[in-house]
Amino acid sequence: MDLSPVRLDALFQALGDPTRRALIHRLAAGPATVSDLARPFDMTLPSFLLHIRKLEASGLVLTSKDGRTRTVTLVPGAFTPVRTWLDDQRDLWEARLDRLETFVTDTPKGPRT
Amino acid sequence: MDLSPVRLDALFQALGDPTRRALIHRLAAGPATVSDLARPFDMTLPSFLLHIRKLEASGLVLTSKDGRTRTVTLVPGAFTPVRTWLDDQRDLWEARLDRLETFVTDTPKGPRT
Repeated sequence: MDLSPVRLDALFQALGDPTRRALIHRLAAGPATVSDLARPFDMTLPSFLLHIRKLEASGLVLTSKDGRTRTVTLVPGAFTPVRTWLDDQRDLWEARLDRLETFVTDTPKGPRT
Repeated sequence: MDLSPVRLDALFQALGDPTRRALIHRLAAGPATVSDLARPFDMTLPSFLLHIRKLEASGLVLTSKDGRTRTVTLVPGAFTPVRTWLDDQRDLWEARLDRLETFVTDTPKGPRT
């Protein structure tokens, strides 16, 4: 799995925008055409297409063209690098808590001198 | 839990940078002073402090000052809104796959007329 900094940057940055998260949320329910996706958003088509391109560059979505219709599809497993990174930090954090617990448990509780 | 767009924007944007992710990774192992955190990075202190401030504004870290020493601490559970958002999209995606499976299973396979 690609956990390179460049890939993680692109994924986190792609998700750091409410329009792009709303698009991902819509696409999780199934593929959609660009025009259907654009409808709920109050922005120009060029601005909207920049969001689609950012999502595509991050690897979160794929687009395909059939005649004049472009369809956008969520890439299965595209969130995996993000999840893996979050899991790694949690593991590190929990290992630290375990060490603290061991330290507290093993430290003699006799009166201090 | 705060799943507001503004909060999610701040969290995802804070994590969309290799320096800030490296800081989070370091802090998952325990709190550290700003000067200790800055040491491995080849950047000026003002640039480095911008990263600390971005992490603090997102709610991922807390800083506290004791005399001239500022200590940075990872906030427990700070990733939870990100995880919850990711889980929601996965649930939606899996519900869609379940519906597709039901559709495929329930569709009669007799010869077409």
